[in-house]
Amino acid sequence: MSQQRVLTGITTSGSPHLGNYVGAIRPAIEASRSGEVESFFFLADYHALIKAQDPDLVHQSTLEIAAAWLALGLDTDRVTFYRQSDIPEIPELTWLLTCMTAKGLMNRAHAYKAAVQANIDGGEDDDTAINMGLFSYPILMAADILMFNAHKIPVGRDQIQHVEMARDIAQRFNHHYGEHFVLPAAQVDDDVAILQGLDGRKMSKSYGNTIPLFLTEKKLKKHINKIKTNLLEPGEPKDPDTSAVFQIWQAFASKDQSQQMRAEFANGIAWGEAKRQLFELVNEQLREPREKYLQLLENPAQVEAVLQQGAQKARQQSSALIAKVRGAVGIRPLG
Amino acid sequence: MSQQRVLTGITTSGSPHLGNYVGAIRPAIEASRSGEVESFFFLADYHALIKAQDPDLVHQSTLEIAAAWLALGLDTDRVTFYRQSDIPEIPELTWLLTCMTAKGLMNRAHAYKAAVQANIDGGEDDDTAINMGLFSYPILMAADILMFNAHKIPVGRDQIQHVEMARDIAQRFNHHYGEHFVLPAAQVDDDVAILQGLDGRKMSKSYGNTIPLFLTEKKLKKHINKIKTNLLEPGEPKDPDTSAVFQIWQAFASKDQSQQMRAEFANGIAWGEAKRQLFELVNEQLREPREKYLQLLENPAQVEAVLQQGAQKARQQSSALIAKVRGAVGIRPLG
Repeated sequence: MSQQRVLTGITTSGSPHLGNYVGAIRPAIEASRSGEVESFFFLADYHALIKAQDPDLVHQSTLEIAAAWLALGLDTDRVTFYRQSDIPEIPELTWLLTCMTAKGLMNRAHAYKAAVQANIDGGEDDDTAINMGLFSYPILMAADILMFNAHKIPVGRDQIQHVEMARDIAQRFNHHYGEHFVLPAAQVDDDVAILQGLDGRKMSKSYGNTIPLFLTEKKLKKHINKIKTNLLEPGEPKDPDTSAVFQIWQAFASKDQSQQMRAEFANGIAWGEAKRQLFELVNEQLREPREKYLQLLENPAQVEAVLQQGAQKARQQSSALIAKVRGAVGIRPLG
Repeated sequence: MSQQRVLTGITTSGSPHLGNYVGAIRPAIEASRSGEVESFFFLADYHALIKAQDPDLVHQSTLEIAAAWLALGLDTDRVTFYRQSDIPEIPELTWLLTCMTAKGLMNRAHAYKAAVQANIDGGEDDDTAINMGLFSYPILMAADILMFNAHKIPVGRDQIQHVEMARDIAQRFNHHYGEHFVLPAAQVDDDVAILQGLDGRKMSKSYGNTIPLFLTEKKLKKHINKIKTNLLEPGEPKDPDTSAVFQIWQAFASKDQSQQMRAEFANGIAWGEAKRQLFELVNEQLREPREKYLQLLENPAQVEAVLQQGAQKARQQSSALIAKVRGAVGIRPLG
C-alpha cells in the first residue's frame, strides 16, 4: 500500500493566530516529521476571496501565513507546500466536479444553511448578501483534496461535513467516469486542541476573537489579558474546564504543567496571575519562531521563491491528474 | 474607439445542425468577413459537460463542430477560434467571478427555474437531479465573455438573460475592484433565423429535434421528409408563416426565392413537392462544405493543429487579462 497522503490548507484572510498554530500548523508539521505520511500544505487564497474582498489584506495574509509555516519549522523538502492560486488545475478540476455535484448536496451545507438562517432571523430573503463563493465552496474544497488524492484531511468537527461532501463528489465521479479519485476521510484528532478565542467561542477569524500568533511581547501580554474570565476573586477555587485561560495553557503545556495548573485553579489562583504565567509559557515557545517570522516578512521574495518551488512540485502531480480526468470526461486531443 | 469585439460559442454536445448553421455559424462568419468587428469563436466543451456525460460524444462533437466551422469557410487568420478547455484562464476567472456573484442572481436564471418547475410538476423536490453545472453555468458564460472583453454577444432571445447576468457580474466586479471588464451587451438580430426543428419547436439538441448539418444526401432527404406538416391536401392553400418547411426554405433562399415559394404555398403546393424543393435548395448549398467537412473528419490532427494555434492566439489575451484581474483581487507575487 502506498503512503497515506494528508492535506491541510489555511485560508489567507487574516493574520495567523494561536488557533491556526495549535489546531493545524503544529500537528501538521509534527506529522510531516514522523515520515509516516506524505504531506500537502497549502495557502487557500481562492477560498479567502469568498469573504476577504480587500486585496491588500489577502496579499499580506498570504505572506504572513506562508512565513508562519516556515518560521515554525516546516521542512519544505519533506512536504509539498504551495499556494492554491499557483495551481491552475485546481479551478479547472472545480468546474469538472461542479458538473458532477448535485445542487441538493450544496443546499445542505452547514455554512450555507447558517447564513440562510441568519437572513431569516433578520427578516431578510433567504439568500440576501450570500455570494456563490459561499454556496459552492465545498466543490472548490473537494478539488483541493481530490487533486492530490489525499486520504486524510485533519479537520475540526465543524469541517467534517465538507470532507464528506468531497467524498460524495469523488464517489459520484468515480461511479460515472471510472476510478480516478481516492475517497478522502476526515481525521478528527481529539488530542488536537480547538482553542477558544477571547470571547470564549471557537477562535476564528470569522468571529474576530483571535490572538495573533506573532505579536510583540507587549501586545501578546495585552491580548492574553483580554481573555474573558469570570468574577471569581483570588483564593476562590476556579473551574479549569470552562476557562479559556486554562485551555490555552493546556495547548502549550506539558502534561505535568497542565496538572500543576489544574491544582492552582483548585487553589484559587488569581486570574491576573494565571494570565501572567500563560503569557510566559506561550511567549517562551514563540520567541524563536517570532524572530524567524519577522526576518521572513522583511524578505518576501525569499518566501515567494519557496512557494514557486512548491508550486513546481505540486504541479507535477496536479498536471498528471488533470490530464487523466480531462480524458475521462471527453476533453482529449483530436486525432 | 477600439474595434467592437464579438463572441460566439457552440456547445459541443452533439452534431452541428441546421439551426447552429443559420443561427450562429453563418452570420458569425459573415460578420468576421466584413472586417468591422474582431471575432472570437469557440467550442464550448466545458459547457457540454453539464448535460453530456458521455465522453466519446463530447470528443466527437468537438471534432464535428470544429470541422463544421472550418468547412463553412471560417478564415482563422481573421478571427480567434479556440476550444474553451484550452484556456485554463477561463475556469480560473470563473472562480474569481463566483466570489462576486450573488446567489440570488443564479436563483433567477430561466434555465434553472424551468428545471425546478419541471420537478415541481412531476411531484419531485425542487432540486431533484439538478447539478451545480446547470445552476452556476451563467458564471462560466460570464467568464467566457469577460475574458476577451467582448462588447457584443449575438444570441437568440432565450439567451439574453445570460448576457445580462454577465453584465451584472462585470459591473459588480468593476465597482468593487476597479474597471477591469467591458460591459457586454446581447445582440439580437431579427434577420437571423431561429429555425424550428422537426417537431415545430425551436431546433435544439436539448429537444432532439434537429436536422444535422452534414448528412449524406439520402439522409438529408429523409430528415426533411420528417418535418411535421398538417393534413392539407395538394391544391389546398397553405400558410407559410406557420410552416417549418417554409421557415427553413426562407433561411436558405434569396428574397426572390422566398416570394416565389410564398406564392406556391398560396397556390396549394403539395407538402411532398415543397419538401423536395427544400431538399434541393439546402443540399445545393451544403454540397461543397460537406466534402470539406468529411475530409476534415478524416484528418482530425489537422483540426487539432488549427485549435492549438487558436489557443495560442487566445491565450495572449487571456493570460494578460487574468494577470490584471488576479492582481486586483490580491493574488500577487510576494516581494
